[in-house]
Amino acid sequence: MMRAMRLATLLGPDLEDALKTDPDALHDALEEFHPEDVAEIVEELDLELTVELFNKLPDEFAADVLTCLTSERQTEILERLSRRSAADILSEMDPDDLVDVVQELREEDAKLADDLLAHIEEAAPEVAEDVRELSAYPEDVAGGLMTTDYVALTPETKVWRAIEEVRRLALDVGVETINYVYVVFKGKLVGVVSMRDLILSESSQELGDVMTENVVTVRVTDDQELVARTIAKYDFTALPVLDEQGNLRGLVTVDDVVDVVIEEATEDAHKMGAVQALEEGYFETNLAQMFRSRVLWLSLLFVGGFLTATVMERFSDQLARAMTLAVFVPLIISSGGNSGSQSASLIIRALAVGDVVPSDWLRVFGREVLVSLALGLVLGVLGFGRAFFAGGPDDDPVLLGVAVSLSTVGVVMTGSLLGSLLPLGIQRVGLDPAVSSTPFIASLVDVVGLLIYLTIAGAVLGV
Amino acid sequence: MMRAMRLATLLGPDLEDALKTDPDALHDALEEFHPEDVAEIVEELDLELTVELFNKLPDEFAADVLTCLTSERQTEILERLSRRSAADILSEMDPDDLVDVVQELREEDAKLADDLLAHIEEAAPEVAEDVRELSAYPEDVAGGLMTTDYVALTPETKVWRAIEEVRRLALDVGVETINYVYVVFKGKLVGVVSMRDLILSESSQELGDVMTENVVTVRVTDDQELVARTIAKYDFTALPVLDEQGNLRGLVTVDDVVDVVIEEATEDAHKMGAVQALEEGYFETNLAQMFRSRVLWLSLLFVGGFLTATVMERFSDQLARAMTLAVFVPLIISSGGNSGSQSASLIIRALAVGDVVPSDWLRVFGREVLVSLALGLVLGVLGFGRAFFAGGPDDDPVLLGVAVSLSTVGVVMTGSLLGSLLPLGIQRVGLDPAVSSTPFIASLVDVVGLLIYLTIAGAVLGV
Repeated sequence: MMRAMRLATLLGPDLEDALKTDPDALHDALEEFHPEDVAEIVEELDLELTVELFNKLPDEFAADVLTCLTSERQTEILERLSRRSAADILSEMDPDDLVDVVQELREEDAKLADDLLAHIEEAAPEVAEDVRELSAYPEDVAGGLMTTDYVALTPETKVWRAIEEVRRLALDVGVETINYVYVVFKGKLVGVVSMRDLILSESSQELGDVMTENVVTVRVTDDQELVARTIAKYDFTALPVLDEQGNLRGLVTVDDVVDVVIEEATEDAHKMGAVQALEEGYFETNLAQMFRSRVLWLSLLFVGGFLTATVMERFSDQLARAMTLAVFVPLIISSGGNSGSQSASLIIRALAVGDVVPSDWLRVFGREVLVSLALGLVLGVLGFGRAFFAGGPDDDPVLLGVAVSLSTVGVVMTGSLLGSLLPLGIQRVGLDPAVSSTPFIASLVDVVGLLIYLTIAGAVLGV
Repeated sequence: MMRAMRLATLLGPDLEDALKTDPDALHDALEEFHPEDVAEIVEELDLELTVELFNKLPDEFAADVLTCLTSERQTEILERLSRRSAADILSEMDPDDLVDVVQELREEDAKLADDLLAHIEEAAPEVAEDVRELSAYPEDVAGGLMTTDYVALTPETKVWRAIEEVRRLALDVGVETINYVYVVFKGKLVGVVSMRDLILSESSQELGDVMTENVVTVRVTDDQELVARTIAKYDFTALPVLDEQGNLRGLVTVDDVVDVVIEEATEDAHKMGAVQALEEGYFETNLAQMFRSRVLWLSLLFVGGFLTATVMERFSDQLARAMTLAVFVPLIISSGGNSGSQSASLIIRALAVGDVVPSDWLRVFGREVLVSLALGLVLGVLGFGRAFFAGGPDDDPVLLGVAVSLSTVGVVMTGSLLGSLLPLGIQRVGLDPAVSSTPFIASLVDVVGLLIYLTIAGAVLGV
């Protein structure tokens, strides 16, 4: 961050001069920095200057910087570059990043996207082919994450030849880190050789002899959460992606997986707070988008909450006869919401990391019954104490205490069971369990909790 | 997973036979599998057999398998191996994993941990030295994550010599992936050379000429969240760790960062649901631990919720005069809890990924005021509709509607502001903002919301 700021000071007013007087020195200076840092400057820079800069930078470095920019800025720059320059820069991008840029661009300016693809087709047909193939997959499955930059060789390839191929790919495509060579026979993946094994083997050996045959793989259609879990479990730096026929189609690398894990955790956190997942950061999301991400759930929960008013109305005679009952309504229903939140957050997270699957529901049920009974008893005792000293002159303190504490046990257990079983059910029918958000569980428990409380209290107090 | 199951079938009853009759063939068979898969079997296997297996496996592979086991299982195995064998296996582990194992072991059996370290000291003093150094750091900072297996060379080292060193480290230490060579001058990190640059350079060049000088680094004391954010931002596969004096002390690799990101997201999800973070998975946590992780927060929230009863008591005369008011208590307070949950989940997540910092509070305040006003107005209109048709014969439907809708606007805004500003304040004083959990915010809003509602309604209805 500090480095980026120093760079910004350097760039600010001098950049135009530097671009005119000594563009070569400027490139050398910029290329000493990580593209991500240069992108941070470019994000704030005057658009004219940025375009001029992109025209002067080597295509490969320009591609790296472009990859790190927000999609808005990418579009602005691509619109102002000549079709030719833009296509040259794009052709240097990693195929998976290129597909993301083209897809974003298409939403903004479909004509430009098509024009650029046509130029890429002409200049680098193999890149255009990659884009066509990768575009076929949704963004959130293995196929949408993978790159087609990898080294695949036949089993009879000699080790020295494989090292040459790695070197060639590193040189041609600019891939920073190649950790595995894949061994393919008639299109099928039959083994993998790590760079370490490659370096340590005799150069005259064949890949078929030094490869590991049990390769952990994912399918093109596998969800990105599964891909992330697999990479995390085995500590791989890359994971091969196969199609339905078992043919090698691409490679998912761990750096993309880190982004996926962070993105999924953010999405889940938002959903669990009853917010529709945002596409951009908090401050990048404008107020109208922010409003839209919240209003639907909030309104649904509010209208659903009308049921609490209905329940209260049905019991209003009883409440009028024993006013003290109303006093404990907020306390009791919130205890159910809280225990439900606890269970929901435990289960939703356990589903996300693969600790629990929907078919475990009976085991989950058993555990939650026991734990929530214990929790309910603790709160029940506390609630008895509070209620015992609360009543008016007409109330029997013991009966009121019993009514409150029994209800608390029932409501806490109801909350826990709803909070744990609902996410399992939602996952079971194929939806994202995180939509059974904390507020959703709490609102549901409000209604059920009221019914439990007012029924039990009515019976105990005989009102 | 399917592979692991096949392996289990193979291993089950035949393992003992295989261990006796043809141990070599067994090793060859096992080594074809990933240590993680073997660990899954070993986790379920008879302990005697497991120990026998560990005695027969090559130390390096045994070390890899041991790394993947739960800490409970690790301790059981280490207790039953001879001190000598245990120390030999441990010496083959990656230093950062070894430190974790020793620290877990020390909690269970301090004497054994010390014994084993003494044996390691004797057999491999450099490993013992690494353990001492790495043990000095807490688990959740860069120093606690880093490994000391890396290649650091002086600037005048020739490229061919650097490649030899990488090969040596890969051979000696069994490191799978070495992506960078670090250039160090008098202990200070002065540059980095990627494997790609190494492969592409002339073998007679010096590292000082081909290295990149601007190296992104972290400090030993930096929090693991910052480390994860930095690796995610730059898409590095490894990040050098410096001490206060700028000396290179170790390396954090991306595979550890994936684990950190998942672990932190789980911790935050639990805290946001008002559960103390669990150390193990849902089913691995026993019922007593599960109870303990929930009871404190739930009880605190419940006792805090006594305030809602106190507020209700204070307004009980007013409620008795206008019973219809009580009907809307659950609806209105839950609307505040819901909007508070939304804001809290947005801000807590934005803090976690670094989108927002506490000093942004004024900007956050401004945005939340506007968004929550809009949300409050939508709910206010809906609430007016519901209240208009709710009153008894003595109630003025318009006044009741106005009371409910005004209160809803106030409560929704209060919820959003508390939900967004509280996490910022908590982070500001150095605590984890995720402790301002959804239930905590909701419970706080319950009390404030009741005060707002009953005050406004009392004033509007004149009761």
